[in-house]
Amino acid sequence: MARGSRLVDLVHARIEDFLAGRSSILRSISPDLDPLDAFSRRFLSGGKRFRALFCYWGWESVAGRGFDPFESDGGRDHYPVVSAASALELFHAAALVHDDLIDNSDTRRGAPSAHRLFESLHADSGWAGGSAEFGRASAILLGDLLLGWSDELFDEGLDAVADRQAARAARAEFMRMRTEVTSGQYLDILEERAWLVQPEAEQRTRAERVIVYKSAKYSIESPLVIGGALAGASAAQLAALRGFGLPLGIAYQLRDDLLGVFGDPEVTGKPSGDDLREGKRTMLVAIARERLSTGQRRLLDELLGDPDLGADQVRMLQRTIADCGAVEEVEAMIADNLASATAVLEDAPLSRDARAELGSLAKAVTRRAS
Amino acid sequence: MARGSRLVDLVHARIEDFLAGRSSILRSISPDLDPLDAFSRRFLSGGKRFRALFCYWGWESVAGRGFDPFESDGGRDHYPVVSAASALELFHAAALVHDDLIDNSDTRRGAPSAHRLFESLHADSGWAGGSAEFGRASAILLGDLLLGWSDELFDEGLDAVADRQAARAARAEFMRMRTEVTSGQYLDILEERAWLVQPEAEQRTRAERVIVYKSAKYSIESPLVIGGALAGASAAQLAALRGFGLPLGIAYQLRDDLLGVFGDPEVTGKPSGDDLREGKRTMLVAIARERLSTGQRRLLDELLGDPDLGADQVRMLQRTIADCGAVEEVEAMIADNLASATAVLEDAPLSRDARAELGSLAKAVTRRAS
Repeated sequence: MARGSRLVDLVHARIEDFLAGRSSILRSISPDLDPLDAFSRRFLSGGKRFRALFCYWGWESVAGRGFDPFESDGGRDHYPVVSAASALELFHAAALVHDDLIDNSDTRRGAPSAHRLFESLHADSGWAGGSAEFGRASAILLGDLLLGWSDELFDEGLDAVADRQAARAARAEFMRMRTEVTSGQYLDILEERAWLVQPEAEQRTRAERVIVYKSAKYSIESPLVIGGALAGASAAQLAALRGFGLPLGIAYQLRDDLLGVFGDPEVTGKPSGDDLREGKRTMLVAIARERLSTGQRRLLDELLGDPDLGADQVRMLQRTIADCGAVEEVEAMIADNLASATAVLEDAPLSRDARAELGSLAKAVTRRAS
Repeated sequence: MARGSRLVDLVHARIEDFLAGRSSILRSISPDLDPLDAFSRRFLSGGKRFRALFCYWGWESVAGRGFDPFESDGGRDHYPVVSAASALELFHAAALVHDDLIDNSDTRRGAPSAHRLFESLHADSGWAGGSAEFGRASAILLGDLLLGWSDELFDEGLDAVADRQAARAARAEFMRMRTEVTSGQYLDILEERAWLVQPEAEQRTRAERVIVYKSAKYSIESPLVIGGALAGASAAQLAALRGFGLPLGIAYQLRDDLLGVFGDPEVTGKPSGDDLREGKRTMLVAIARERLSTGQRRLLDELLGDPDLGADQVRMLQRTIADCGAVEEVEAMIADNLASATAVLEDAPLSRDARAELGSLAKAVTRRAS
């Protein structure tokens, strides 16, 4: 993925450049805004950039330029897709800032989450009032700022697209993606609470709905489609990108569900068993609940979502979920979805080069350890 | 303001129509999203629509059509400005949802705020977990949804503008407005806490900075400029709109500060002395602190920001602030700023008709009781 890693550098540079512009606006208002600037940069400096990569390869799969970002045309040709890919990363940073607040997560990528950073700023500055309250309020505003900026960066890219119909199609997907992922997040926090009054028979369907909207479309299908649309994709090409992206996105999220329960904290940057303390009602949990005895299920329901679960309790829950065969079933679902996705690639009307890269990316995102 | 009230109807219809489209997307995902739809409509059904009116009159002041929205051209001509005006209202609804959460406000326009609505939904549904936590999480997401939608509606309007330079200028102002108002909100919550460690000599300057960015530009200057830019305003016309809008916006917010302390709850829909309980460090407070004796100032600082202030304490604070002459000084500032604004109008290169309406609007927003 040599071009992939160069793309990551280009996205990084585009984000830096964009943030430098925003930074000068903030500075013109007041140096008191420096923390908003510093924390924005911090949350945009890392991450796996999967969304950016899928967006780029969606574009390349249609444009088929075999383009070399450093040597071809000084950057004019790929400016829209690099901007769109960067905008997706900005949007994602905004979503994570709000998500950590919603989930009450203390850490993100092994470092303090945004509301905790603002909380420390307050505590260290000797200001009046409560630090936690200031942390939460500031993180809401930081997320709002990043949301607006992602849109601004996206539009900057669109302005450089000569084909207006392509630009409109890309924007329509970006807009729909935002509505869908926010809906998916709402369904996610709803499931954590509403499972109590829902019929047992619906739990898989409900878990799958969260996977599709909160993650699969957002993380993979939409980035691919946005990239493809920017390059003027035909209906058949968009259908192929969707046909590949959706099952891959489902596999991606199922891997995430496993990592949320069994992931190595050293690698994920999140505490072990984080999803158990948050009480996420994932597909993994739905399957485990089907397989467990009534007594075991009752115990799982009782402990799931308890923010104070100890290490022993986490290990016990991990064992319960693994021993009932739920992990194997989820692994099989990942393999099936990955197979569906790669089957679509085989004779998709997309560039050969991009199909090979998408195939490698598909493996990477479903086999990752963080 | 006959055309003004017809404009309000057009904006209302445009918002309804737009939300109906979003509603069908939400419905296609899940009926569990109905509350997001219902609460969006609720927060967009009321309000004074000042931002929409300023946006429209900014447009009309440059377009000078003397246009009649119901009779002229079936709506094609004014579609962009009505969309932009509606988008400003959507953005404002988003900001209020997050603002009420930040300020921990229970009510908005005399009805429960968004996080309280979601809290009740949770409590009434027999779901697991805490209701307050679900309320806060859902309100973050509702605000995010509305933020994205405001942008979508704005872009729909821009697509219909033939003059691309005009469209870009309007969008640039919209983007800058979002960065500025979010920055202003951050400075506002910062002042509530950081005043403790700031030099007394800076308090007026700091209060004014909040007024300018949180309110004056956002509520009046930017809506006017967005409208004007959409109509292809010249640099001189934009300068006139800014020259009128900024002082008027300052006067508007100073009136708001007075209403936040002395407003009639029956009219404002907010509890009496709400700003006192929230501990807002407004210009009114800055001026009162300059005028009070050391002992009175200490008492004010002690009580300001106490969420549990009783009716007696609120009355005592109201009297203290009024008796020291701070209210008169703020009233004089309102009058001065209003005079500066109207002076700019007099020989501004804007349509005579629009100047007359802007003059009336200026009086209305600085003399309002809610």
